[in-house]
Amino acid sequence: MEKFAVLVAGGKGVRMGTALPKQFLPLAGRPVLYHSVRAFIDTFPDVHLVLVLPPEQLSYAHMVLQHFPAGLDLSVVAGGETRFHSVQNGLRSVPPGAVVFVHDGVRPLVSPALIRRCYEQAVAQGSAIPAIPVSDSIRMIKDNGSHAVNRELLRSIQTPQTFRSDVLLPAFAREWSDAFTDEATVVEAHGTDIFLVEGEKSNIKVTTPEDLVLAEALLKERF
Amino acid sequence: MEKFAVLVAGGKGVRMGTALPKQFLPLAGRPVLYHSVRAFIDTFPDVHLVLVLPPEQLSYAHMVLQHFPAGLDLSVVAGGETRFHSVQNGLRSVPPGAVVFVHDGVRPLVSPALIRRCYEQAVAQGSAIPAIPVSDSIRMIKDNGSHAVNRELLRSIQTPQTFRSDVLLPAFAREWSDAFTDEATVVEAHGTDIFLVEGEKSNIKVTTPEDLVLAEALLKERF
Repeated sequence: MEKFAVLVAGGKGVRMGTALPKQFLPLAGRPVLYHSVRAFIDTFPDVHLVLVLPPEQLSYAHMVLQHFPAGLDLSVVAGGETRFHSVQNGLRSVPPGAVVFVHDGVRPLVSPALIRRCYEQAVAQGSAIPAIPVSDSIRMIKDNGSHAVNRELLRSIQTPQTFRSDVLLPAFAREWSDAFTDEATVVEAHGTDIFLVEGEKSNIKVTTPEDLVLAEALLKERF
Repeated sequence: MEKFAVLVAGGKGVRMGTALPKQFLPLAGRPVLYHSVRAFIDTFPDVHLVLVLPPEQLSYAHMVLQHFPAGLDLSVVAGGETRFHSVQNGLRSVPPGAVVFVHDGVRPLVSPALIRRCYEQAVAQGSAIPAIPVSDSIRMIKDNGSHAVNRELLRSIQTPQTFRSDVLLPAFAREWSDAFTDEATVVEAHGTDIFLVEGEKSNIKVTTPEDLVLAEALLKERF
């Protein structure tokens, strides 16, 4: 099926404490976002890429694009008020009959194996949400203290959250709700079952300086 | 109050894929466990240390001890069948009227600030369990697919799980249950409220090769 990767990068650099938004910070010499884009191209050279950036960062796109040959099938789209609105904007050019990867721009270490696994399951089941076991003990806070939660049943969710467009597009043709924390919650609210797929511990989200240190170290190990 | 740090290191190196158990792997040139022990001594020079090791690893203790001056107040105790039994063994020498830190030996990056925070809250409230927000989306698996969980109310639990001994010792004077995944669940089963304290994202548990890479990188940043 036709493949669309919608890369959402909404970070303002607040938690990083840097002027440059985290998605453009250098990782092994190239912007974080470069690595995310490249993972999809390496896996599926025929993928259509949609890069969703905050309006004020549209001009930064060249920092990523300059590292790819001219003629790359990538469009840059302005994001919206929330993640939901940004993805909505990114989906405008997605046709029926496609598979859509919605990926955090700041997960630069996603592997081709995971992208392929997501594709295959989404084609077959409609959705493929990468998930890994929760490794720490988990407690739920309550008025006075906290209580234990059985982590065996919990999964930590990553991206690319992958869907067939017949599942994803109708779900996104609706009003925003503050319960929408990711794409899976939107599709779930539309009444569709959500199927998980095995994620990767190394597929980290780079949101703090520690994460960037880890990403750098993991990339060095990889090559 | 008198202070006891019970450091539990039960790892067999399985997930690490190494012959040497993870608690003895080199981190910045010294065993992982060395760093954990040192954090407590740096914070409270008068702390009594109890190192709980699998019986077959008791002879490895010198790898840690050789880096400290002679006369260190540290006893080495053989662990048991489960984490619960190991901690039970480690608590044998703990008197009433003390504060007890139960710490994962493989959390070498715990900071003196966190240890002090745990101490003060445990003195005042009976317990102090370091916790950090859950940064990923969380889903719960069910028969057909999965459903979203509100992560705002969830906390990821670390160590040192810290208690006054009047809270901890009675809770551990009981039979084991497979619901005991950490010390807080034991104390909770005894009917005592569990109070959280702010943990540290950098206070990671070193269980995989990726974690060791991160710990190494974080330690380098710190010095």
